[in-house]
Amino acid sequence: MLLYDFKMAPNARRVRVFAAEKGLDIPMQEVDLGNRAQLGADYLAVNPMGEVPALVLDDGTVLTESTAICRYLEEVYPDPPLCGRNPLERAQMMMWDRRVEQHGFAAVAEGFRNGNPFFKDRSVTGTTDFAQLPELAERGKQRFANFLELMEQRLGESEFVGGDRFSIADITALITIDFARTIKGAIGEHQPNLKRWYGAVNGRPSAKA
Amino acid sequence: MLLYDFKMAPNARRVRVFAAEKGLDIPMQEVDLGNRAQLGADYLAVNPMGEVPALVLDDGTVLTESTAICRYLEEVYPDPPLCGRNPLERAQMMMWDRRVEQHGFAAVAEGFRNGNPFFKDRSVTGTTDFAQLPELAERGKQRFANFLELMEQRLGESEFVGGDRFSIADITALITIDFARTIKGAIGEHQPNLKRWYGAVNGRPSAKA
Repeated sequence: MLLYDFKMAPNARRVRVFAAEKGLDIPMQEVDLGNRAQLGADYLAVNPMGEVPALVLDDGTVLTESTAICRYLEEVYPDPPLCGRNPLERAQMMMWDRRVEQHGFAAVAEGFRNGNPFFKDRSVTGTTDFAQLPELAERGKQRFANFLELMEQRLGESEFVGGDRFSIADITALITIDFARTIKGAIGEHQPNLKRWYGAVNGRPSAKA
Repeated sequence: MLLYDFKMAPNARRVRVFAAEKGLDIPMQEVDLGNRAQLGADYLAVNPMGEVPALVLDDGTVLTESTAICRYLEEVYPDPPLCGRNPLERAQMMMWDRRVEQHGFAAVAEGFRNGNPFFKDRSVTGTTDFAQLPELAERGKQRFANFLELMEQRLGESEFVGGDRFSIADITALITIDFARTIKGAIGEHQPNLKRWYGAVNGRPSAKA
Protein backbone atom coordinates (compact mmCIF):
# COMPACT_ATOMS: atom_id res chain seq x y z
CA MET A 1 0.00 0.00 0.00
CA LEU A 2 1.00 3.61 -0.52
CA LEU A 3 -0.76 6.59 1.05
CA TYR A 4 -0.68 9.92 -0.77
CA ASP A 5 -0.56 12.35 2.07
CA PHE A 6 0.00 15.94 3.09
CA LYS A 7 1.07 16.58 6.66
CA MET A 8 -1.15 19.62 7.22
CA ALA A 9 -4.26 18.22 5.50
CA PRO A 10 -6.77 17.20 8.18
CA ASN A 11 -8.44 14.45 6.16
CA ALA A 12 -5.05 12.92 5.46
CA ARG A 13 -4.28 13.10 9.18
CA ARG A 14 -7.54 11.31 9.88
CA VAL A 15 -6.23 8.32 7.93
CA ARG A 16 -2.76 8.58 9.50
CA VAL A 17 -4.17 8.54 13.04
CA PHE A 18 -6.53 5.69 12.16
CA ALA A 19 -3.66 3.63 10.70
CA ALA A 20 -1.47 4.38 13.73
CA GLU A 21 -4.21 3.09 16.07
CA LYS A 22 -4.18 -0.12 14.02
CA GLY A 23 -0.42 -0.38 14.38
CA LEU A 24 0.02 -0.05 10.62
CA ASP A 25 3.08 1.51 9.08
CA ILE A 26 1.88 2.50 5.61
CA PRO A 27 4.47 4.03 3.26
CA MET A 28 3.51 7.63 2.46
CA GLN A 29 4.20 10.00 -0.36
CA GLU A 30 3.76 13.71 0.25
CA VAL A 31 1.65 15.71 -2.21
CA ASP A 32 2.66 19.34 -1.73
CA LEU A 33 -0.68 21.10 -1.40
CA GLY A 34 1.24 24.27 -0.60
CA ASN A 35 2.35 24.27 -4.24
CA ARG A 36 -0.96 22.85 -5.52
CA ALA A 37 0.68 19.60 -6.55
CA GLN A 38 -2.73 17.93 -6.07
CA LEU A 39 -3.81 19.65 -9.29
CA GLY A 40 -0.76 18.61 -11.30
CA ALA A 41 -0.97 15.94 -14.01
CA ASP A 42 1.01 13.40 -11.97
CA TYR A 43 -1.36 13.42 -9.05
CA LEU A 44 -4.53 13.80 -11.10
CA ALA A 45 -3.53 10.51 -12.75
CA VAL A 46 -3.77 8.97 -9.26
CA ASN A 47 -6.87 10.83 -8.06
CA PRO A 48 -8.76 12.79 -10.72
CA MET A 49 -10.69 14.54 -7.93
CA GLY A 50 -7.50 16.42 -7.00
CA GLU A 51 -7.79 15.72 -3.29
CA VAL A 52 -5.71 13.95 -0.66
CA PRO A 53 -5.60 11.39 0.86
CA ALA A 54 -5.54 8.55 -1.63
CA LEU A 55 -4.59 4.98 -0.77
CA VAL A 56 -3.07 2.85 -3.52
CA LEU A 57 -3.49 -0.87 -2.89
CA ASP A 58 -0.89 -3.44 -3.93
CA ASP A 59 -2.85 -4.31 -7.07
CA GLY A 60 -2.93 -0.64 -8.10
CA THR A 61 -6.52 0.06 -7.08
CA VAL A 62 -6.88 3.61 -5.76
CA LEU A 63 -9.21 4.40 -2.87
CA THR A 64 -10.05 8.00 -1.99
CA GLU A 65 -12.35 9.70 0.55
CA SER A 66 -10.87 9.39 4.03
CA THR A 67 -13.98 7.76 5.49
CA ALA A 68 -13.96 5.02 2.83
CA ILE A 69 -10.23 4.44 3.34
CA CYS A 70 -10.71 4.10 7.12
CA ARG A 71 -13.59 1.63 6.69
CA TYR A 72 -11.46 -0.39 4.31
CA LEU A 73 -8.59 -0.53 6.81
CA GLU A 74 -11.08 -1.50 9.53
CA GLU A 75 -12.22 -4.51 7.53
CA VAL A 76 -8.78 -5.68 6.46
CA TYR A 77 -7.16 -5.01 9.85
CA PRO A 78 -10.01 -5.55 12.33
CA ASP A 79 -7.94 -5.26 15.53
CA PRO A 80 -8.37 -3.10 17.47
CA PRO A 81 -11.91 -2.28 16.31
CA LEU A 82 -12.32 1.46 15.72
CA CYS A 83 -15.75 1.46 14.05
CA GLY A 84 -17.77 -0.63 16.51
CA ARG A 85 -17.97 -4.32 17.37
CA ASN A 86 -21.53 -5.12 16.26
CA PRO A 87 -24.15 -3.62 13.92
CA LEU A 88 -25.70 -1.30 16.51
CA GLU A 89 -22.37 -0.04 17.86
CA ARG A 90 -21.13 0.47 14.29
CA ALA A 91 -24.26 2.48 13.47
CA GLN A 92 -23.95 4.64 16.57
CA MET A 93 -20.27 5.34 15.98
CA MET A 94 -20.94 6.11 12.34
CA MET A 95 -23.80 8.41 13.38
CA TRP A 96 -21.51 10.37 15.67
CA ASP A 97 -18.70 10.36 13.15
CA ARG A 98 -21.10 11.87 10.63
CA ARG A 99 -22.33 14.49 13.08
CA VAL A 100 -18.72 15.52 13.70
CA GLU A 101 -18.10 15.72 9.94
CA GLN A 102 -21.22 17.72 9.17
CA HIS A 103 -21.38 20.08 12.12
CA GLY A 104 -17.68 20.29 12.98
CA PHE A 105 -15.33 19.50 10.14
CA ALA A 106 -17.47 21.10 7.44
CA ALA A 107 -17.80 24.24 9.56
CA VAL A 108 -14.05 24.61 10.02
CA ALA A 109 -13.41 23.94 6.33
CA GLU A 110 -15.98 26.60 5.45
CA GLY A 111 -14.29 29.09 7.76
CA PHE A 112 -10.74 28.30 6.69
CA ARG A 113 -11.16 28.11 2.93
CA ASN A 114 -13.29 31.25 2.76
CA GLY A 115 -11.21 33.29 5.18
CA ASN A 116 -7.56 32.55 4.41
CA PRO A 117 -5.88 34.51 1.58
CA PHE A 118 -4.05 31.35 0.44
CA PHE A 119 -7.39 29.98 -0.79
CA LYS A 120 -8.36 32.96 -2.92
CA ASP A 121 -10.61 31.51 -5.65
CA ARG A 122 -10.10 28.06 -4.07
CA SER A 123 -12.97 27.99 -1.58
CA VAL A 124 -13.92 24.42 -2.49
CA THR A 125 -11.49 21.47 -2.73
CA GLY A 126 -11.05 19.86 -6.12
CA THR A 127 -10.36 20.86 -9.67
CA THR A 128 -12.72 23.84 -10.11
CA ASP A 129 -12.03 27.32 -8.79
CA PHE A 130 -14.70 29.04 -6.69
CA ALA A 131 -14.44 32.52 -5.21
CA GLN A 132 -14.26 32.94 -1.45
CA LEU A 133 -17.35 34.18 0.40
CA PRO A 134 -16.34 36.21 3.47
CA GLU A 135 -19.78 35.68 5.02
CA LEU A 136 -19.23 31.96 4.81
CA ALA A 137 -15.98 32.31 6.73
CA GLU A 138 -17.93 34.00 9.51
CA ARG A 139 -20.70 31.40 9.41
CA GLY A 140 -18.12 28.63 9.68
CA LYS A 141 -16.78 30.13 12.91
CA GLN A 142 -20.26 30.37 14.39
CA ARG A 143 -21.08 26.81 13.41
CA PHE A 144 -17.84 25.55 14.92
CA ALA A 145 -18.70 27.27 18.22
CA ASN A 146 -22.06 25.45 18.15
CA PHE A 147 -20.25 22.20 17.42
CA LEU A 148 -18.08 22.62 20.52
CA GLU A 149 -21.27 23.00 22.59
CA LEU A 150 -22.68 19.83 21.04
CA MET A 151 -19.48 17.96 21.89
CA GLU A 152 -19.41 19.36 25.44
CA GLN A 153 -22.90 18.05 26.02
CA ARG A 154 -22.16 14.67 24.43
CA LEU A 155 -18.96 14.20 26.41
CA GLY A 156 -20.83 14.95 29.61
CA GLU A 157 -22.89 11.82 28.91
CA SER A 158 -20.33 9.59 27.26
CA GLU A 159 -16.63 8.93 27.82
CA PHE A 160 -15.90 9.05 24.10
CA VAL A 161 -17.69 10.72 21.19
CA GLY A 162 -19.02 7.50 19.68
CA GLY A 163 -19.82 5.69 22.94
CA ASP A 164 -17.88 4.06 25.79
CA ARG A 165 -14.93 3.08 23.57
CA PHE A 166 -12.43 5.06 21.54
CA SER A 167 -13.52 5.07 17.88
CA ILE A 168 -13.23 6.74 14.51
CA ALA A 169 -15.61 9.43 15.81
CA ASP A 170 -12.94 10.49 18.32
CA ILE A 171 -10.33 10.61 15.57
CA THR A 172 -12.56 12.79 13.40
CA ALA A 173 -13.33 15.07 16.35
CA LEU A 174 -9.64 15.34 17.27
CA ILE A 175 -8.53 16.30 13.78
CA THR A 176 -11.46 18.72 13.51
CA ILE A 177 -10.59 20.53 16.73
CA ASP A 178 -6.91 20.77 15.79
CA PHE A 179 -7.92 21.95 12.29
CA ALA A 180 -9.95 24.71 13.96
CA ARG A 181 -6.70 26.48 14.92
CA THR A 182 -6.83 27.79 11.35
CA ILE A 183 -9.94 29.78 12.28
CA LYS A 184 -8.79 30.54 15.84
CA GLY A 185 -11.35 28.11 17.24
CA ALA A 186 -10.54 26.34 20.51
CA ILE A 187 -12.11 24.50 23.44
CA GLY A 188 -13.19 27.01 26.09
CA GLU A 189 -12.56 27.11 29.84
CA HIS A 190 -16.29 26.51 30.35
CA GLN A 191 -16.07 23.16 28.54
CA PRO A 192 -14.57 20.75 31.09
CA ASN A 193 -15.86 17.59 29.43
CA LEU A 194 -14.25 18.53 26.15
CA LYS A 195 -11.01 19.36 27.96
CA ARG A 196 -11.01 15.99 29.72
CA TRP A 197 -11.70 14.17 26.46
CA TYR A 198 -9.14 16.17 24.45
CA GLY A 199 -6.43 15.46 27.01
CA ALA A 200 -7.16 11.74 26.74
CA VAL A 201 -7.29 11.44 22.94
CA ASN A 202 -4.49 13.90 22.28
CA GLY A 203 -2.35 11.95 24.76
CA ARG A 204 -2.57 8.76 22.71
CA PRO A 205 0.56 8.03 20.64
CA SER A 206 -1.57 7.99 17.46
CA ALA A 207 -2.29 11.73 17.83
CA LYS A 208 1.28 12.45 16.71
CA ALA A 209 0.64 10.76 13.35
CA MET B 1 -38.86 -0.12 14.08
CA LEU B 2 -40.33 3.29 13.33
CA LEU B 3 -38.94 5.73 10.78
CA TYR B 4 -39.50 9.44 11.32
CA ASP B 5 -39.89 10.69 7.81
CA PHE B 6 -40.90 13.61 5.62
CA LYS B 7 -41.94 12.79 2.08
CA MET B 8 -40.14 15.70 0.44
CA ALA B 9 -36.92 15.44 2.46
CA PRO B 10 -34.23 13.88 0.25
CA ASN B 11 -32.25 12.26 3.06
CA ALA B 12 -35.44 10.63 4.33
CA ARG B 13 -36.12 9.39 0.81
CA ARG B 14 -32.63 7.93 0.70
CA VAL B 15 -33.59 5.66 3.61
CA ARG B 16 -37.03 4.88 2.13
CA VAL B 17 -35.53 3.78 -1.21
CA PHE B 18 -32.84 1.77 0.57
CA ALA B 19 -35.45 0.00 2.71
CA ALA B 20 -37.64 -0.64 -0.35
CA GLU B 21 -34.70 -2.30 -2.13
CA LYS B 22 -34.35 -4.56 0.90
CA GLY B 23 -38.06 -5.42 0.73
CA LEU B 24 -38.60 -3.87 4.16
CA ASP B 25 -41.88 -2.29 5.14
CA ILE B 26 -40.91 -0.01 8.01
CA PRO B 27 -43.74 1.90 9.74
CA MET B 28 -43.29 5.62 9.21
CA GLN B 29 -44.34 8.72 11.03
CA GLU B 30 -44.39 12.01 9.15
CA VAL B 31 -42.62 15.01 10.69
CA ASP B 32 -44.08 18.08 9.02
CA LEU B 33 -41.01 20.04 8.03
CA GLY B 34 -43.32 22.45 6.20
CA ASN B 35 -44.50 23.58 9.63
CA ARG B 36 -41.07 23.14 11.24
CA ALA B 37 -42.28 20.27 13.39
CA GLN B 38 -38.67 19.00 13.44
CA LEU B 39 -37.90 21.87 15.82
CA GLY B 40 -40.84 21.19 18.15
CA ALA B 41 -40.33 19.70 21.61
CA ASP B 42 -41.92 16.38 20.62
CA TYR B 43 -39.50 15.68 17.84
CA LEU B 44 -36.45 17.18 19.54
CA ALA B 45 -37.06 14.56 22.26
CA VAL B 46 -36.53 11.94 19.52
CA ASN B 47 -33.67 13.66 17.68
CA PRO B 48 -32.12 16.65 19.45
CA MET B 49 -30.38 17.56 16.19
CA GLY B 50 -33.78 18.56 14.74
CA GLU B 51 -33.30 16.65 11.48
CA VAL B 52 -35.06 13.81 9.69
CA PRO B 53 -34.81 10.91 9.16
CA ALA B 54 -34.55 9.12 12.50
CA LEU B 55 -34.98 5.38 12.96
CA VAL B 56 -36.29 4.17 16.31
CA LEU B 57 -35.35 0.55 17.02
CA ASP B 58 -37.61 -1.79 18.95
CA ASP B 59 -35.63 -1.25 22.16
CA GLY B 60 -36.06 2.52 21.83
CA THR B 61 -32.58 3.28 20.54
CA VAL B 62 -32.66 6.17 18.06
CA LEU B 63 -30.38 6.19 15.02
CA THR B 64 -30.00 9.33 12.91
CA GLU B 65 -27.91 10.33 9.89
CA SER B 66 -29.22 8.63 6.77
CA THR B 67 -25.91 7.03 5.90
CA ALA B 68 -25.61 5.40 9.35
CA ILE B 69 -29.22 4.20 9.15
CA CYS B 70 -28.61 2.61 5.74
CA ARG B 71 -25.46 0.87 6.92
CA TYR B 72 -27.35 -0.48 9.92
CA LEU B 73 -30.11 -1.85 7.68
CA GLU B 74 -27.45 -3.38 5.43
CA GLU B 75 -25.97 -5.31 8.32
CA VAL B 76 -29.25 -6.48 9.82
CA TYR B 77 -30.85 -7.26 6.44
CA PRO B 78 -27.89 -8.24 4.25
CA ASP B 79 -29.92 -9.36 1.19
CA PRO B 80 -29.73 -7.99 -1.39
CA PRO B 81 -26.36 -6.36 -0.67
CA LEU B 82 -26.46 -2.62 -1.42
CA CYS B 83 -23.10 -1.58 0.05
CA GLY B 84 -20.78 -4.11 -1.56
CA ARG B 85 -20.05 -7.81 -1.10
CA ASN B 86 -16.46 -7.69 0.13
CA PRO B 87 -14.11 -5.14 1.73
CA LEU B 88 -12.83 -3.69 -1.53
CA GLU B 89 -16.26 -3.43 -3.15
CA ARG B 90 -17.63 -1.87 0.04
CA ALA B 91 -14.81 0.69 0.04
CA GLN B 92 -15.34 1.58 -3.62
CA MET B 93 -19.10 1.95 -3.23
CA MET B 94 -18.61 4.02 -0.10
CA MET B 95 -16.07 6.17 -1.94
CA TRP B 96 -18.54 6.88 -4.73
CA ASP B 97 -21.38 7.38 -2.28
CA ARG B 98 -19.27 9.98 -0.51
CA ARG B 99 -18.33 11.72 -3.76
CA VAL B 100 -22.03 11.99 -4.61
CA GLU B 101 -22.76 13.40 -1.15
CA GLN B 102 -19.95 15.94 -1.20
CA HIS B 103 -20.04 17.11 -4.80
CA GLY B 104 -23.71 16.53 -5.60
CA PHE B 105 -26.00 16.46 -2.59
CA ALA B 106 -24.16 19.17 -0.67
CA ALA B 107 -24.19 21.39 -3.76
CA VAL B 108 -27.95 21.08 -4.22
CA ALA B 109 -28.60 21.65 -0.52
CA GLU B 110 -26.41 24.77 -0.68
CA GLY B 111 -28.36 26.04 -3.70
CA PHE B 112 -31.80 25.22 -2.33
CA ARG B 113 -31.45 26.42 1.24
CA ASN B 114 -29.76 29.67 0.25
CA GLY B 115 -32.03 30.44 -2.67
CA ASN B 116 -35.57 29.53 -1.60
CA PRO B 117 -37.55 32.12 0.41
CA PHE B 118 -38.97 29.36 2.62
CA PHE B 119 -35.52 28.94 4.18
CA LYS B 120 -35.01 32.59 5.09
CA ASP B 121 -32.66 32.49 8.11
CA ARG B 122 -32.65 28.69 7.85
CA SER B 123 -29.75 28.13 5.47
CA VAL B 124 -28.37 25.25 7.56
CA THR B 125 -30.38 22.28 8.87
CA GLY B 126 -30.69 21.90 12.63
CA THR B 127 -31.59 23.99 15.61
CA THR B 128 -29.65 27.21 14.93
CA ASP B 129 -30.76 29.90 12.47
CA PHE B 130 -28.30 31.10 9.85
CA ALA B 131 -28.97 33.79 7.25
CA GLN B 132 -29.12 32.84 3.59
CA LEU B 133 -26.18 33.74 1.36
CA PRO B 134 -27.38 34.41 -2.20
CA GLU B 135 -23.86 33.84 -3.57
CA LEU B 136 -23.92 30.39 -2.04
CA ALA B 137 -27.15 29.61 -3.92
CA GLU B 138 -25.35 30.47 -7.13
CA ARG B 139 -22.27 28.46 -6.20
CA GLY B 140 -24.44 25.45 -5.42
CA LYS B 141 -25.91 25.54 -8.93
CA GLN B 142 -22.47 25.70 -10.50
CA ARG B 143 -21.19 22.86 -8.34
CA PHE B 144 -24.20 20.74 -9.24
CA ALA B 145 -23.49 21.28 -12.95
CA ASN B 146 -19.93 20.06 -12.34
CA PHE B 147 -21.31 17.07 -10.48
CA LEU B 148 -23.43 16.08 -13.48
CA GLU B 149 -20.29 16.13 -15.62
CA LEU B 150 -18.51 13.92 -13.08
CA MET B 151 -21.41 11.47 -13.16
CA GLU B 152 -21.59 11.51 -16.97
CA GLN B 153 -17.94 10.56 -17.13
CA ARG B 154 -18.26 7.89 -14.44
CA LEU B 155 -21.31 6.33 -16.06
CA GLY B 156 -19.47 6.18 -19.37
CA GLU B 157 -17.04 3.80 -17.66
CA SER B 158 -19.31 1.96 -15.27
CA GLU B 159 -22.88 0.65 -15.47
CA PHE B 160 -23.71 1.97 -12.02
CA VAL B 161 -22.23 4.77 -9.93
CA GLY B 162 -20.52 2.49 -7.41
CA GLY B 163 -19.43 -0.23 -9.86
CA ASP B 164 -21.05 -2.99 -11.90
CA ARG B 165 -23.90 -3.51 -9.43
CA PHE B 166 -26.68 -1.29 -8.15
CA SER B 167 -25.70 0.14 -4.74
CA ILE B 168 -26.29 2.83 -2.16
CA ALA B 169 -24.25 5.17 -4.38
CA ASP B 170 -26.98 4.92 -7.04
CA ILE B 171 -29.65 5.67 -4.45
CA THR B 172 -27.78 8.73 -3.21
CA ALA B 173 -27.24 9.92 -6.80
CA LEU B 174 -30.93 9.36 -7.68
CA ILE B 175 -32.24 11.32 -4.71
CA THR B 176 -29.65 14.04 -5.38
CA ILE B 177 -30.68 14.49 -9.01
CA ASP B 178 -34.38 14.55 -8.12
CA PHE B 179 -33.62 17.01 -5.29
CA ALA B 180 -31.94 19.25 -7.88
CA ARG B 181 -35.36 20.12 -9.30
CA THR B 182 -35.49 22.60 -6.43
CA ILE B 183 -32.65 24.53 -8.06
CA LYS B 184 -33.80 23.85 -11.64
CA GLY B 185 -30.91 21.45 -12.16
CA ALA B 186 -31.39 18.54 -14.57
CA ILE B 187 -29.54 16.03 -16.73
CA GLY B 188 -28.75 17.57 -20.13
CA GLU B 189 -29.29 16.25 -23.64
CA HIS B 190 -25.50 16.02 -24.00
CA GLN B 191 -25.31 13.52 -21.12
CA PRO B 192 -26.41 10.19 -22.63
CA ASN B 193 -24.76 8.01 -20.00
CA LEU B 194 -26.56 9.83 -17.22
CA LYS B 195 -29.84 9.52 -19.12
CA ARG B 196 -29.35 5.78 -19.59
CA TRP B 197 -28.51 5.34 -15.93
CA TYR B 198 -31.33 7.56 -14.68
CA GLY B 199 -33.87 5.63 -16.76
CA ALA B 200 -32.66 2.39 -15.22
CA VAL B 201 -32.59 3.45 -11.58
CA ASN B 202 -35.72 5.58 -11.75
CA GLY B 203 -37.50 2.62 -13.32
CA ARG B 204 -36.92 0.41 -10.29
CA PRO B 205 -39.97 0.04 -8.04
CA SER B 206 -37.94 1.40 -5.10
CA ALA B 207 -37.72 4.83 -6.77
CA LYS B 208 -41.37 5.42 -5.87
CA ALA B 209 -40.61 5.11 -2.16
